[in-house]
Amino acid sequence: MPEGFNTVCEIRVRFAETDAQGIAHHAAYVVWLEVARIAYLAEHAGGYSALRAQGIEALTTGVKVDYRAAAGFDDVLAIHVRCVDLRGARFRYEYRIERGCELMATAETLHATVNATTMRPTRVPAWLADAIATAERAS
Amino acid sequence: MPEGFNTVCEIRVRFAETDAQGIAHHAAYVVWLEVARIAYLAEHAGGYSALRAQGIEALTTGVKVDYRAAAGFDDVLAIHVRCVDLRGARFRYEYRIERGCELMATAETLHATVNATTMRPTRVPAWLADAIATAERAS
Amino acid sequence: MPEGFNTVCEIRVRFAETDAQGIAHHAAYVVWLEVARIAYLAEHAGGYSALRAQGIEALTTGVKVDYRAAAGFDDVLAIHVRCVDLRGARFRYEYRIERGCELMATAETLHATVNATTMRPTRVPAWLADAIATAERAS
Amino acid sequence: MPEGFNTVCEIRVRFAETDAQGIAHHAAYVVWLEVARIAYLAEHAGGYSALRAQGIEALTTGVKVDYRAAAGFDDVLAIHVRCVDLRGARFRYEYRIERGCELMATAETLHATVNATTMRPTRVPAWLADAIATAERAS
Repeated sequence: MPEGFNTVCEIRVRFAETDAQGIAHHAAYVVWLEVARIAYLAEHAGGYSALRAQGIEALTTGVKVDYRAAAGFDDVLAIHVRCVDLRGARFRYEYRIERGCELMATAETLHATVNATTMRPTRVPAWLADAIATAERAS
Repeated sequence: MPEGFNTVCEIRVRFAETDAQGIAHHAAYVVWLEVARIAYLAEHAGGYSALRAQGIEALTTGVKVDYRAAAGFDDVLAIHVRCVDLRGARFRYEYRIERGCELMATAETLHATVNATTMRPTRVPAWLADAIATAERAS
Repeated sequence: MPEGFNTVCEIRVRFAETDAQGIAHHAAYVVWLEVARIAYLAEHAGGYSALRAQGIEALTTGVKVDYRAAAGFDDVLAIHVRCVDLRGARFRYEYRIERGCELMATAETLHATVNATTMRPTRVPAWLADAIATAERAS
Repeated sequence: MPEGFNTVCEIRVRFAETDAQGIAHHAAYVVWLEVARIAYLAEHAGGYSALRAQGIEALTTGVKVDYRAAAGFDDVLAIHVRCVDLRGARFRYEYRIERGCELMATAETLHATVNATTMRPTRVPAWLADAIATAERAS
């Protein structure tokens, strides 16, 4: 596990995720980051469903990916993920995508919690903030 | 326009829709069929939004695609579409996908209208049935 | 395992695979079928890469899905798969998608092996035909 | 056209691109940026195919999207695009995504041209650099 990371999620590159360059399409990584966030919430905070059950949605307000090496069909990738900078209604995830020992990409995503009905910002609930703090303290 | 068809929708194959075989991935066609259905409803029946505004969703209950020739990146495809066999809560679309004069695929999809809240089957509303009948009579 | 099936592959519905109806989009199933085929080849025949390494590609020439029940975000689905009707350059896969005991969809896909360079049909290699026969005899 | 931009490409949000939050999924934007780049190359430089015909591929080495407002199903979005900072084998695209007068997102992507066979960096060909310079001078 890279230093500072406590959660990892594995994905296998699907054939449908490759493109005519013969590599995994760069948009697929953005989907994988989401898979890793869902896994993070499942492991540390009762799952994304717990959030939705309280009428809260987490919007993605920013995405940034730096691609270092091309992944190919059927590659198994480890997506290391951590949650940082939680403040009010906002938080950020950081990621390292690795294939074996090789760094394939780094990424970060920005999020805001909103009331699912009004779509207006609402503070990250205390139980989630606590769960994230506990998860990150352990890393 | 192939005989019996009255509506056509053009799509251009996106690079993200290609795969490592260098051709358009077969799952992309299923998305294109939906684009064609939306275009059909927009042209003949006030759009899919009109349906959703009445608390009705159209579920897809079946898909069948016969692939004849591989489409490539940036190909412009004409998706001919018609709606047939409307009965109660059910209807069917038929499609011919062409590139110039070449037949690339034929397809059909099955649908059922449901109440958006209960997800229970509900008859296709009369205005939509009429709009489809009018569209198909013209072809 | 449903009778007659010998291979199963699990997928978890990704958030990106849901749509504004709040359910897994019907095109996602077509991608999952491919994931199941890849798993089948990995389990019984040295993987799809073994095929590609010999300059052979397997094209998808037909897809048919019957949707029975809507899958939701984060659902774990078991995709049972078997390979049947191998003849010359052609073969067929059959699928049952289940969530726990519930049948969610049945499907079949048609395929043809082609020379990766010429894209012309070429017989399914004997070692693959044998591997499939062995796998299916066991079920 | 926003100041400094000379190329625009329109897309309509597909139903398959929405998610269970009822909005366009954030990964779809990354695909749309690519559609806009392809349109840019078609308009100013003979198309992406011209590049590939010379044995050159353009890799995406970075993506950054700032989401400002959520797009919905069937929304028509204008993707304004420009190419900047071309140097050696590297260049960058900047984007503004608008719905009517509303700014929906800004984005940038980083690219490197590589030899399609060796996948090693190779200078952007002079004809393409010239075409981009001409396009950008006009804006």
